[in-house]
Amino acid sequence: MSVLLGELAVQVGAELRGDARLPIDRVGTLSGAGAGAITFLANPQYRAQLALTRASAVVLDRASAAECPVAALISDNPHATYARIATLLHPVAAMPPGVHPSAVVAAGATVDAQAHVGALAFIAAGARIGARASVGPGSIVAEGVHIGADSLVGARVTLCRGVRLGERVIVHPGAVIGADGFGFARDAAGWLKVPQLGGVLIGDDVEIGANTTIDRGAIEDTVIETGAKLDNQIQIGHNVRIGAHTVIAGCTGISGSARIGQRCMIGGAVSIAGHLQICDDAVIAGHSAITHDIRTPDLYIGVLSAEPARLWRRLAGRFKRLDELARRVGRLERAAGGRKESAGEQDRSDE
Amino acid sequence: MSVLLGELAVQVGAELRGDARLPIDRVGTLSGAGAGAITFLANPQYRAQLALTRASAVVLDRASAAECPVAALISDNPHATYARIATLLHPVAAMPPGVHPSAVVAAGATVDAQAHVGALAFIAAGARIGARASVGPGSIVAEGVHIGADSLVGARVTLCRGVRLGERVIVHPGAVIGADGFGFARDAAGWLKVPQLGGVLIGDDVEIGANTTIDRGAIEDTVIETGAKLDNQIQIGHNVRIGAHTVIAGCTGISGSARIGQRCMIGGAVSIAGHLQICDDAVIAGHSAITHDIRTPDLYIGVLSAEPARLWRRLAGRFKRLDELARRVGRLERAAGGRKESAGEQDRSDE
Amino acid sequence: MSVLLGELAVQVGAELRGDARLPIDRVGTLSGAGAGAITFLANPQYRAQLALTRASAVVLDRASAAECPVAALISDNPHATYARIATLLHPVAAMPPGVHPSAVVAAGATVDAQAHVGALAFIAAGARIGARASVGPGSIVAEGVHIGADSLVGARVTLCRGVRLGERVIVHPGAVIGADGFGFARDAAGWLKVPQLGGVLIGDDVEIGANTTIDRGAIEDTVIETGAKLDNQIQIGHNVRIGAHTVIAGCTGISGSARIGQRCMIGGAVSIAGHLQICDDAVIAGHSAITHDIRTPDLYIGVLSAEPARLWRRLAGRFKRLDELARRVGRLERAAGGRKESAGEQDRSDE
Repeated sequence: MSVLLGELAVQVGAELRGDARLPIDRVGTLSGAGAGAITFLANPQYRAQLALTRASAVVLDRASAAECPVAALISDNPHATYARIATLLHPVAAMPPGVHPSAVVAAGATVDAQAHVGALAFIAAGARIGARASVGPGSIVAEGVHIGADSLVGARVTLCRGVRLGERVIVHPGAVIGADGFGFARDAAGWLKVPQLGGVLIGDDVEIGANTTIDRGAIEDTVIETGAKLDNQIQIGHNVRIGAHTVIAGCTGISGSARIGQRCMIGGAVSIAGHLQICDDAVIAGHSAITHDIRTPDLYIGVLSAEPARLWRRLAGRFKRLDELARRVGRLERAAGGRKESAGEQDRSDE
Repeated sequence: MSVLLGELAVQVGAELRGDARLPIDRVGTLSGAGAGAITFLANPQYRAQLALTRASAVVLDRASAAECPVAALISDNPHATYARIATLLHPVAAMPPGVHPSAVVAAGATVDAQAHVGALAFIAAGARIGARASVGPGSIVAEGVHIGADSLVGARVTLCRGVRLGERVIVHPGAVIGADGFGFARDAAGWLKVPQLGGVLIGDDVEIGANTTIDRGAIEDTVIETGAKLDNQIQIGHNVRIGAHTVIAGCTGISGSARIGQRCMIGGAVSIAGHLQICDDAVIAGHSAITHDIRTPDLYIGVLSAEPARLWRRLAGRFKRLDELARRVGRLERAAGGRKESAGEQDRSDE
Repeated sequence: MSVLLGELAVQVGAELRGDARLPIDRVGTLSGAGAGAITFLANPQYRAQLALTRASAVVLDRASAAECPVAALISDNPHATYARIATLLHPVAAMPPGVHPSAVVAAGATVDAQAHVGALAFIAAGARIGARASVGPGSIVAEGVHIGADSLVGARVTLCRGVRLGERVIVHPGAVIGADGFGFARDAAGWLKVPQLGGVLIGDDVEIGANTTIDRGAIEDTVIETGAKLDNQIQIGHNVRIGAHTVIAGCTGISGSARIGQRCMIGGAVSIAGHLQICDDAVIAGHSAITHDIRTPDLYIGVLSAEPARLWRRLAGRFKRLDELARRVGRLERAAGGRKESAGEQDRSDE
């Protein structure tokens, strides 16, 4: 699809600087785009590439516009404006309505006439697939699952018994929603399985990444609220609640019964312990561990970056003797006579 | 199913305090349960909810019974007693015997007449499915796999060539058991694949979570012993042995040839390095790294919890200069004249 | 297959010490092998088992040969020599050419006459399966995917639209290649999806582990270069480039737009932040976090090993007061009169 730059500017509400009649037919990167392509600058790390770009136009903020060697669309939010342009230039083809002949739809399942069911998918009894929704090839939609209108379930997804998806939900391949939570009671003979009787409720506009797992609740439901975005290989334990518009990057694990607030931003490979509460608008850096409630919106970090082995081994050795080091400082202070000015700042164990 | 509270008490061996004729038809949470529901109190964190519960009855220990505003079932192990009650009130419907018409069972596979094979599952030659076992829709059971009686393999599971499952094993959707271990030998031209020739042996009563992966042994078998419970997205490398009744929470990775003892409790997102031995009854906190053998049963922790960024950055900066800090303390000690009392407690590098 | 030891020595170019006419028919472990089996010693940790082995022969280096109680094949690289022998003794049966009758091959897909397509696999329009390539049962090969000659795609793999695999690539079950990257732009109403328009390009001789996910690029391609080896449950974000012959152990996450050099060795459960550059030949220990570029080949470590809880809690408490400890040392130094010799080594905050 080719659009004139001036039309694009109008459609996305950006200010045009340059030739409105430039034809634009695709997006590209700052360094890779050529004539006909539009690109964007949002991450300052890539600013040095701006002067060299050969794109026809660049979406950027006002402060960067002066340095732009080609036509510019000026936006307060270049990334969002770019997203709208990319969606216009590269529309996703809707899946054709209908059930692939190799798919299996059980008696008692309801598939909307405008929905798509891919090859070798299985729709069990009592499942309901909404208007214009799509179930990808090889996916399993178990008994009583509801998929809301316009939702896109990718290939090889598993939606277990009774899981409910809202509208415009996107689920990527390999995700498993509604497997049993990890519930066992210790007993004389070992571990006794605790029946996992709740469901999973996924709100509208949620996106769930590839091979992510979301367990069903033990008694009540696990809930992912409206607009939350979950990356790949995330593990959500039973009874967890993720607040609306919270984003979570890949490989993060959230233990059972944790409650995450709205609009949080949680990095990749984070661990959140069970039964915790994280307030709205908290931001957690990648690879951090959260072992206590978070009550104040802030950026939280819990990661020590790697160092060359020779240095790290010295540091780790020092860390392991940190208690002794503190005691030595306490002895020096006592020997120096009093430490009056700092007596309240240390604990009793420095002796 | 509705049961009188007095009958429930008898069936699970709990002491009844309250009206034996109360009808109970379901379980619920302390805060959410209403009339007809039974709940439990096992985690002291939820004790404050006890006084407000509107359940018909609560399973709890003797110490908490006095505060219970409704009927009580008193148990030394409320969680296990609750699990038994939930199993009684919410029995899982057995899968109907038989092979779904869309499933593919190769010539030379043996499916017990009382076993269930779901839609679009594939059972390869030489596979053997035991009595009352169930293979979920979309699952792949490769050549020579054995599935013991009463085992439940969920949807979209992959059991690779020759994997053997005991009885009453549960495997959740997306799990992959028996893929090649990660074995490569460095060579002039790059990395040479080392054939992965062993199998995977899963004992009775093991449970394996969604999207968990267990690699086949390089030469001998990878072994998960009786009653072990593995949560979602766990990675078990080749040649690992997990002892009986050990439980492992989600996202944990166990590197090749590690041997984990019996009755261990391993938290989520733990990393265990290769070729280690962990003794019986060890407990490892979530997000910890284990880089040495564990020889003594104890609770092991290796995680620093996240802090607000401003504080954490100062701490991380201090950590990176910890070697210098220790040297400064050493100089102060020498200047103060000797440190006779602590000379043996520090290392030579404090200078 | 049985081979005489002398023939094996010739075929793999090893020096024989012992009886050339010993028949060898399989591999085994040092501790488990019996007559007829050949084993190897490469990890010094297992050296004590050498004296007790009952294998017919052992592959080892010259330094260890004197201690070998049985026949020996001497090699500078015992692990690689063992790999070649194991491949000879235990050849993998090629999959039979042809499409399983239950597989679905769309009109417009091209499957080489010598390729294999397993049961219940789906090959979409425009896909191309090369000579002697194999697609496992239950796998989904989407529109326009190319699979190079001699590649082995396991069971239940998902190759999304347009993904291209080179020759001799191995993909293990449950892997998802080409799902959307995690791209959202914050907007007044929440998060706006950024179209993910790039592809994934997998070079020759790459191996990809079970349930690993590799996202498609946002604009250009995500690239895994020749000979790279990825273990299970690895997450590769959009636009990442992994250099040739780099190996990555399980559960590691690499955030979007990171560029990893050639011949790197990255341990398990490592986190690499977005937009970073890692130079060629870097080695990263397991469970480490990388938050800055790595510019010098070296071993990098970033992990503190777990300790018994009582000790760890003291250390973690000391760590959280490290800023105060450093200030106390600064005060002692000033009180001691000057610290002339170390004034340049500490920062201004020690006051």
